[in-house]
Amino acid sequence: MTLVGPRNRIDSVRILGPARHADQVEISRRDEFFLGVDAPVRASGDTDNTPGIKLLGPTGSVTLTKGVICALRHIHMHPDDATRFRVRNGDLVNVAVNGGNRDLTFSDVLIRVDEQFRLEMHIDTDEANAAGLQAHDVGTLSLLEEHAHMVV
Amino acid sequence: MTLVGPRNRIDSVRILGPARHADQVEISRRDEFFLGVDAPVRASGDTDNTPGIKLLGPTGSVTLTKGVICALRHIHMHPDDATRFRVRNGDLVNVAVNGGNRDLTFSDVLIRVDEQFRLEMHIDTDEANAAGLQAHDVGTLSLLEEHAHMVV
Repeated sequence: MTLVGPRNRIDSVRILGPARHADQVEISRRDEFFLGVDAPVRASGDTDNTPGIKLLGPTGSVTLTKGVICALRHIHMHPDDATRFRVRNGDLVNVAVNGGNRDLTFSDVLIRVDEQFRLEMHIDTDEANAAGLQAHDVGTLSLLEEHAHMVV
Repeated sequence: MTLVGPRNRIDSVRILGPARHADQVEISRRDEFFLGVDAPVRASGDTDNTPGIKLLGPTGSVTLTKGVICALRHIHMHPDDATRFRVRNGDLVNVAVNGGNRDLTFSDVLIRVDEQFRLEMHIDTDEANAAGLQAHDVGTLSLLEEHAHMVV
């Protein structure tokens, strides 16, 4: 699929299932500048007051009136993992990345707990590049000094 | 100026003075993927065993045999600032960014001290986006638990 912004378009954008109740387009900050769209950092599903965008596919196009977000970094985990890490759905935690020459500690990492999830941290390419990360690299989860929680 | 990589080219690249003894091209990880160049994270000036690239200007082109780096994040400071922060040229420190929804702490931040420098942290667009930063935002410098130093 192609995202068509006011400034540029991005081809070969992947469509992820399962289908949601509402359309959602997750792009990086870099993609925002390129497309010419100013989208907020949001937890997945929180698409009120977000910009729309034109989607172009092989059989036509559709223009969304909202749904474009810059995804808040988050960790999918099974309830067993949540017990092990002593976190609950909606908690915000830190994740430290060490061992390279771009070590850093991400804060504002949202915990999402679901029976269907397996342990996986989701970040965008800007965030991966800033930490010098590649697929399958690992980080170290730690709790914030002051407990923080989002309603998600 | 235009950078011409094996995969793509990037136009409107800025040339920075004063002139160096050796050519150096600083690009982000994202730019590397786009251009098709695999450059290491390096301190400025450390260009041994780095890839080259073709430069295209209004009156012709030149192909560098080396000099493309992904710049190690760093802070320029005057010796007075170094005294105030209790750091020396070559030290590696942490810088925390707080107050938004992409808070993080950069490690591996190199201190560069020079009489000509004024206090300024240099990061690339990947790093700025990961922290939700814009020009003139500020961070908090802290020392590492174990002192780290690079010869620069």
